[in-house]
Amino acid sequence: MRAKLRSIIESRQWEYTIIGVIVLNAVVLGLETNQALVSHYGPVLSFLDELALFIFVIELTLRIFAFGPSFFRGPWNLFDFIIVSIALVPAAGPATILRSLRILRVLRLISVIPSLRNVVGGLVRALPGMGSIVLLMALVFYVFSVMATGLYGAAFPEWFGSISRSTYTLFQVMTLESWSMGIVRPVMEVYPLAWLFFIPFILCTAFTVLNLFIGIIVSAMQQEHDKDLEADRLEVHEETRLILNELKGLRADLIKELEKHRINGD
Amino acid sequence: MRAKLRSIIESRQWEYTIIGVIVLNAVVLGLETNQALVSHYGPVLSFLDELALFIFVIELTLRIFAFGPSFFRGPWNLFDFIIVSIALVPAAGPATILRSLRILRVLRLISVIPSLRNVVGGLVRALPGMGSIVLLMALVFYVFSVMATGLYGAAFPEWFGSISRSTYTLFQVMTLESWSMGIVRPVMEVYPLAWLFFIPFILCTAFTVLNLFIGIIVSAMQQEHDKDLEADRLEVHEETRLILNELKGLRADLIKELEKHRINGD
Amino acid sequence: MRAKLRSIIESRQWEYTIIGVIVLNAVVLGLETNQALVSHYGPVLSFLDELALFIFVIELTLRIFAFGPSFFRGPWNLFDFIIVSIALVPAAGPATILRSLRILRVLRLISVIPSLRNVVGGLVRALPGMGSIVLLMALVFYVFSVMATGLYGAAFPEWFGSISRSTYTLFQVMTLESWSMGIVRPVMEVYPLAWLFFIPFILCTAFTVLNLFIGIIVSAMQQEHDKDLEADRLEVHEETRLILNELKGLRADLIKELEKHRINGD
Amino acid sequence: MRAKLRSIIESRQWEYTIIGVIVLNAVVLGLETNQALVSHYGPVLSFLDELALFIFVIELTLRIFAFGPSFFRGPWNLFDFIIVSIALVPAAGPATILRSLRILRVLRLISVIPSLRNVVGGLVRALPGMGSIVLLMALVFYVFSVMATGLYGAAFPEWFGSISRSTYTLFQVMTLESWSMGIVRPVMEVYPLAWLFFIPFILCTAFTVLNLFIGIIVSAMQQEHDKDLEADRLEVHEETRLILNELKGLRADLIKELEKHRINGD
Repeated sequence: MRAKLRSIIESRQWEYTIIGVIVLNAVVLGLETNQALVSHYGPVLSFLDELALFIFVIELTLRIFAFGPSFFRGPWNLFDFIIVSIALVPAAGPATILRSLRILRVLRLISVIPSLRNVVGGLVRALPGMGSIVLLMALVFYVFSVMATGLYGAAFPEWFGSISRSTYTLFQVMTLESWSMGIVRPVMEVYPLAWLFFIPFILCTAFTVLNLFIGIIVSAMQQEHDKDLEADRLEVHEETRLILNELKGLRADLIKELEKHRINGD
Repeated sequence: MRAKLRSIIESRQWEYTIIGVIVLNAVVLGLETNQALVSHYGPVLSFLDELALFIFVIELTLRIFAFGPSFFRGPWNLFDFIIVSIALVPAAGPATILRSLRILRVLRLISVIPSLRNVVGGLVRALPGMGSIVLLMALVFYVFSVMATGLYGAAFPEWFGSISRSTYTLFQVMTLESWSMGIVRPVMEVYPLAWLFFIPFILCTAFTVLNLFIGIIVSAMQQEHDKDLEADRLEVHEETRLILNELKGLRADLIKELEKHRINGD
Repeated sequence: MRAKLRSIIESRQWEYTIIGVIVLNAVVLGLETNQALVSHYGPVLSFLDELALFIFVIELTLRIFAFGPSFFRGPWNLFDFIIVSIALVPAAGPATILRSLRILRVLRLISVIPSLRNVVGGLVRALPGMGSIVLLMALVFYVFSVMATGLYGAAFPEWFGSISRSTYTLFQVMTLESWSMGIVRPVMEVYPLAWLFFIPFILCTAFTVLNLFIGIIVSAMQQEHDKDLEADRLEVHEETRLILNELKGLRADLIKELEKHRINGD
Repeated sequence: MRAKLRSIIESRQWEYTIIGVIVLNAVVLGLETNQALVSHYGPVLSFLDELALFIFVIELTLRIFAFGPSFFRGPWNLFDFIIVSIALVPAAGPATILRSLRILRVLRLISVIPSLRNVVGGLVRALPGMGSIVLLMALVFYVFSVMATGLYGAAFPEWFGSISRSTYTLFQVMTLESWSMGIVRPVMEVYPLAWLFFIPFILCTAFTVLNLFIGIIVSAMQQEHDKDLEADRLEVHEETRLILNELKGLRADLIKELEKHRINGD
């Protein structure tokens, strides 16, 4: 019975049904942001939303039943499980934040549509390779944040009053948003040498981001290149094989010919 | 007669004439933005503009006649047809917007000049390959817009009052324009944890755009690489062929020599 | 005598002398921006500046004499000639702008230092390949500028009052500087649909710049790759040659051996 | 005894101990930015900080003793030595700046964790290859700064009053932060042609940065490519060797066979 359930769950129709439910749910959640619509059709929208959630819970339960404990070994299954669980919480509580999290259900489209799954999977698989650079970036941010808090925290509590505020402000500086007119020029009016702190920070982070970027490009091209190379190598092997076969044929022929000859010559 | 018309339309002189008319029309439309010139030479400029449009209509009619229904199968022909049709509408209406759309005629330069046609064609052909990433981006934008509307819509109706406003504001945040000083810092004064929403959004979209970017670079290089590889492969084949020929020659020679030898030996 | 002059001009010492004069001149022109220094050492600085200019004129005259009319065929010679000519004009006039142009003389460092010459030469040589994209960009800017002038010129004369102002504002929008908070949000207060104009503009130009960028990267890598491939190909040829030689040796040996054998057998 | 000391210093446990001390020190220095914590636990935090510094000094002394003068030849050793020396100075002085520099000790993580050392080493090793472009950039900045000071220094002393101020402002313009709304539009109100100065500056620097960027990408890919090529070439050699061996075997066989034959034939 499990096998039958699995074949249903993995069928095209089932997939399209689920995509349909997700899209419908997305539309409903979008419509619910409009106050005028909510005041008129509030109950209908709520019903449709809860219906969609109900379908998701049923679907997930069926999948857990069909695949057993191995269900929790697939990362995308876990993703679905977490998304639906989050969606279940706001159904209970009234808080705005929890209600807003319901829209995360729409992210299930990523796990349902194969091409999206590939793209996101590719992004996530690229993460471990960036470990060192992310660690370096975190280190740079921590060191500069502690320094900024010590140096400018007293004069600019709004921007550098604590490590977390400094980190936020330095993130803003890294994205180059209003870094000079908004942050560094005002700071330089109190500490004229502040550029000695901020310009190296900008150059450091720009350089680190650049390296992160290049690392990703190079590894992406490397993958493509390896695929090519593999094909290429197979072809070279093939050609070498042709030549070697020809040579072996030649050897065999000649030996045979000479044998015959010897017999004749005898 | 159609064949003759076609050869005229595809001749160099015709091409240069049309380019000349487009450039002249562009200059006229540019001059018309200057009020002083319009008050003095308004009728002349209008006449030249209408003359250019007249020429475009004639040219298009001739091309439709010359190529028959197959005209509408060429994407660039459709482009020309739409551009001229748009241009015909404002000639009728007085509204500023419609008048402004007349300048779109100048885009016909893209379909007329081959190098521009290649560049734009290349850009457009790159689009389908980005389908998944664009879909992912749309999904990210929709989810974050609905959340932003629910979370910050009440306090900041100007920025997050509806899904469309949130989408616009999030697009601005994605381009990093005034994201912190202009949007997130004011929001954080009301909701201190707003950075937990915006910083992940910035990182998500930056990462997605980066992947879009890398995808395009890698596919562009791949194309170049494939061309090279093809040439390379042909050359390797050529070399293998040389060796195999030599081997076959050797085989034939030896066989012949041995045959001769056998006869002699007999 | 010309040949001797040429060998002097192309000698290392001469090169270093000229670099020294340029650097000294750069320092003098830098010091002249300081009012306090000018009021004390003004005449000395002026003298040094004029001395440097005098040396440049002498050097250029000698080079023109040494190389004759062929001097004007070298692009870097022309560069030097123009730079020094510009520098000669401000020596005559008193206007601030002309005085400021004297610092351009320092750019002669580019033509004197070989590594800088290579870098700039590389950049300049990359330009023709971008011709189509630059033309496309110009077309996009012209079309959008004329439209912006027609649509928003009346309400925002400061930003879109004429084609040149629109072009400047659109350039600012393209660089994403204050595009939303500074320009598009104010415009949208009057024309709520203005985002339909600006967001496509941003996407168009971003896409064009991206393509310019990718074009340059791909061509840079292509050049590197071609160099590699050439080396690679030579090596493959070398290996094929080895195999062919071995085969020919084998053929010759066997033929000889068989000949001998036949003679013996006879 | 030195050898034993070295083996201790290079052991895994020692490495993990030092990493632990650095992380602990980082946390302590972070906590010290919080005034409330300092007023309660100030002495404890100070003690922990001084203890960490003491451990660093001991460790460095041991390493200098263990490796002798060759210690100062390793760049990472020098890095550690400088970092700890800087950290020693603030322990003596009371000034805020010196105190803030203590956090730099945390950068020792870079020299202790191998993966971080590799990443930073890679970045630093990429620097010499960029020498020419950095020199070109410096030249461009110097020329434009001197010009800006001469042209706009009088009217905008805050931004262009001296060469250093101009350089800072131009750096801001290069990062595109508020370049138009913040700097160039106000300047254009006094000097309407200022865009003739700033737009070429932006294009020049964008182009130079682009080239720096491409240079780094190309060299990074080149390195990867060379590694591949090496592997590839080895494989091709291997295949050629196979063919040549087969050919030599064939030759030997035939010669032997013919020898045998001749003996038989005799």
